[in-house]
Amino acid sequence: MTGSQINRRELLGAGVATAAALGIADTAMGEGAMLAPGVARTDLAAALAAFRGVVGAEWVAGDAASVVPWTGSYVPDPGGHHAPVGAVCPASVEEVQAILKIANQYRQPLWPVSTGKNMGYGRTTTAAPGQVVLDLKRMNRIISVDPVLCTALVEPGVTYQQLRDYLDENAIPLWIDVPTVGPIVGPVGNTLDRGVGYTPYGEHFMVQCGMEVVLANGDILKTGMGSTKNPSAWQAFKWGYGPYLDGIFTQSNFGVVTKMGLWLMPAPPVYKPLVIRHRHVEDVSRIVDAMRPLRIANIVPNVVLMMSAGYQLAMFHRRGEVWNGAGPVPDEAFGSFAAAHDLGMWNTYIALYGTPAMVAESERIIRGAFAAIDGEVMTEEQMHGNPWFHHHATLMRGGLSLEEVGLARWKGAGGGLAWFAPVAPALGSETLGQIALAKDILARHGFDYTSAFAIGSRELHHIIALLFDKSDPEEERRADACYRDLVEGFGERGWASYRTGVQAMDLVAQQYGATNRAVNAAIKQALDPNHILAPGKSGIA
Amino acid sequence: MTGSQINRRELLGAGVATAAALGIADTAMGEGAMLAPGVARTDLAAALAAFRGVVGAEWVAGDAASVVPWTGSYVPDPGGHHAPVGAVCPASVEEVQAILKIANQYRQPLWPVSTGKNMGYGRTTTAAPGQVVLDLKRMNRIISVDPVLCTALVEPGVTYQQLRDYLDENAIPLWIDVPTVGPIVGPVGNTLDRGVGYTPYGEHFMVQCGMEVVLANGDILKTGMGSTKNPSAWQAFKWGYGPYLDGIFTQSNFGVVTKMGLWLMPAPPVYKPLVIRHRHVEDVSRIVDAMRPLRIANIVPNVVLMMSAGYQLAMFHRRGEVWNGAGPVPDEAFGSFAAAHDLGMWNTYIALYGTPAMVAESERIIRGAFAAIDGEVMTEEQMHGNPWFHHHATLMRGGLSLEEVGLARWKGAGGGLAWFAPVAPALGSETLGQIALAKDILARHGFDYTSAFAIGSRELHHIIALLFDKSDPEEERRADACYRDLVEGFGERGWASYRTGVQAMDLVAQQYGATNRAVNAAIKQALDPNHILAPGKSGIA
Repeated sequence: MTGSQINRRELLGAGVATAAALGIADTAMGEGAMLAPGVARTDLAAALAAFRGVVGAEWVAGDAASVVPWTGSYVPDPGGHHAPVGAVCPASVEEVQAILKIANQYRQPLWPVSTGKNMGYGRTTTAAPGQVVLDLKRMNRIISVDPVLCTALVEPGVTYQQLRDYLDENAIPLWIDVPTVGPIVGPVGNTLDRGVGYTPYGEHFMVQCGMEVVLANGDILKTGMGSTKNPSAWQAFKWGYGPYLDGIFTQSNFGVVTKMGLWLMPAPPVYKPLVIRHRHVEDVSRIVDAMRPLRIANIVPNVVLMMSAGYQLAMFHRRGEVWNGAGPVPDEAFGSFAAAHDLGMWNTYIALYGTPAMVAESERIIRGAFAAIDGEVMTEEQMHGNPWFHHHATLMRGGLSLEEVGLARWKGAGGGLAWFAPVAPALGSETLGQIALAKDILARHGFDYTSAFAIGSRELHHIIALLFDKSDPEEERRADACYRDLVEGFGERGWASYRTGVQAMDLVAQQYGATNRAVNAAIKQALDPNHILAPGKSGIA
Repeated sequence: MTGSQINRRELLGAGVATAAALGIADTAMGEGAMLAPGVARTDLAAALAAFRGVVGAEWVAGDAASVVPWTGSYVPDPGGHHAPVGAVCPASVEEVQAILKIANQYRQPLWPVSTGKNMGYGRTTTAAPGQVVLDLKRMNRIISVDPVLCTALVEPGVTYQQLRDYLDENAIPLWIDVPTVGPIVGPVGNTLDRGVGYTPYGEHFMVQCGMEVVLANGDILKTGMGSTKNPSAWQAFKWGYGPYLDGIFTQSNFGVVTKMGLWLMPAPPVYKPLVIRHRHVEDVSRIVDAMRPLRIANIVPNVVLMMSAGYQLAMFHRRGEVWNGAGPVPDEAFGSFAAAHDLGMWNTYIALYGTPAMVAESERIIRGAFAAIDGEVMTEEQMHGNPWFHHHATLMRGGLSLEEVGLARWKGAGGGLAWFAPVAPALGSETLGQIALAKDILARHGFDYTSAFAIGSRELHHIIALLFDKSDPEEERRADACYRDLVEGFGERGWASYRTGVQAMDLVAQQYGATNRAVNAAIKQALDPNHILAPGKSGIA
């Protein structure tokens, strides 16, 4: 009874409750799955029964067998703390409202997901135990696409594939911008997680415009221009009047976003993807310094991705093909395998978009900049047939690919992948120290360094794919410890993450300080006083 | 005693208190200025005395004579409801904290301003009566400029002129982006009001990066990466981790922003300003439709300004020079006076930035698009000596100009100017109905139609300068009624404003609906439970 004896408000109202504290199980009730703090098994059962009354029994999962589709993830979860205890799949805003009302009644927390396929960040698993997934996949209407204003309004279950198909079927000459695994994920979920893509519209939150949010009390908030009398500018103007609210519904648990507007890119007359190859690990420093001014001046108009040989190889090869020695794969092994496949140690992907004259002028400037630092600038013709180039050339025009799913098979069939994504300013001097630190921590736990760097605008993302075999419980424990060491080791040096998986949300939130957490806790308390929406998300109880 | 008998929480806690309700004076105490609801004159006096202890008597104004510098504004205020009752000028974050503590103690509301020169939006006057201006002009340090990352971190009192001078004195080849009257206003105030400028960095909130905010309880929040251990990415990466908070401190009263980061634009190799002239009022519809795809595709990289002849002439001429007949200035009078000064009925200003080849290619495309709709594309050489072209060419390279102050002198020395700024999607079909509606409402109250349209990206701003003679009390009353009719008339048709002056904040907020107001009220209550920060700002009590 220890869990339920602890006053729930003490745990959740303080704004500094840890995932561990939230994870206290209701042991008296506790056969099977853990419950949320203060929720009795009878409450959960009653909530699930009421959910069935709203959406029909076939759209509610509440026992160990039926909940399986929502319990799997690539991220380490050695204690099984992150598996949901149920799932409910509404088909409309009204059903979402009814579900929230029930959740408030029984204090049963819900974990909203859009398509629930965010790969190495946790998929449909939850930050704290005992939650029921609020799976919005059935709400998958493309509400409108405006080919004149180049905008769309979509529901959370809409996938990028669906949006691409809609544009093709209606011959609308607009591009979309996808993250990895575009076919199975969608704009709402990715944007709310502040994910990024590969075209000039790659900063998804920047090109988001207008939201509909169901608040915990069931009220429907339309942001921006959405609540005005004739909201024809809802997808045209981001800010509206008064405090700009959209941001507080990203990486948060303050509401359930049920519609989102986004801007789409007009198809350019010419598209020219390029890769710039470099041979040495330490070249990355020079690449960043050469790329930064080009990116800031918009001569390179899209998010710049610098893929290490390791990350590239892990997409299409198994580890045993590259290395069978002891310890992590050495740079030399990655480098020589990569070279045999026409790849460099770093493979920097960019693309140009515009009229022939614009593209030619940008290419001239870029070639000049990279000739000065020994970069080989390669075109689509030169890389013809290369599967890596083909993959990135597809992404940089908003094309769809599932190929990065291969990462999760690097070390076995168990599917282990956790992305670690610290942020720094876009300075070459930030790179080599990060690489040394990452290699050191990864090697200590027996893992390979497989990474990419990305320059959004003025910032550098280091995207480290922690690849492990989740079918090996010992390796899963090591991966969990390794990820925590990465967060803490990088945090100590001043490199905090922009995004993380359900297994480390509280840990990352700690690095953003007590006042930040207190403000989030105060807003949470104001908008969701029963804490029914995703407690633990981004470290917010 | 009617005012103080009304329970302050009833007025302020509901989130729907009107400016009129807030304006109830403490009549028992009430010699002189009105007090804030629930604040006794002795409280105000005690607060002012305590402020003197913090900043020194010379930096506090609290009597009718000394507060005069803060009571003037261009906007209509026939009842005198918007004049502050005092001002306090801190020099540091610590002094801001001490002032907030005192304000909480006496429940004395404060109205934070940065430089307090926002022209037709109210300057240092307040949305509701009885407030003390928290004037941050003394906090005017340029904390850092990073010439490599092209960023700056500044305090609220820093003016654009000061930032421009700093860059020049240090030979840093970066541009700034200014709103009108750049020399006397600054990046913090303008960005927090979500103001816009004229270069490719004209959407100021989009290029803002990182804030320091003193909360009502004195805590210091640093947004984005600012609170991490080594915040080297504070001005490089906008979002940080968890809910993106910066937006809720714009057009709001949730905190006092004491530092703000912004991105600066690298000086381009070539700058080429252009004006496109059209002769007829109805041409604006075709201009918008021709410009929208160019703007969305970034061929026109900056905010597009379509200046009517009336707005242009009012900058440099007095009304009597243009028209002495009865009623509003007719289009024909504006048109012929404009033609005599080498201006069109519409004068659309854009600029190109880049290498010679990039600029040439963009100009080729733009000339093609506007030749098709009878636009005369004119260069700097062709417009040499034209003061209007010179003014806009200055603004579009981030140059400084005070010339638009002239607007306030159109009808006399009284200085009357209120900007009305409804938003629509960027469609030509939105323009003529708005113009007809605006002319109708303005004429009914005896005012001229002097306006501009602006295309930011996918949205159209209609910027109507309501010009009146504030030295004439009857005309000031008419201007006040006219502005309210504009807000209501446009709102009825679905055109709500993106920004407004202190005299109409509650009115505009109403058009964004009850849920929006309830969310703002809940956040306000969570972050400023005593409502000491700018009650009435953006309609938030």
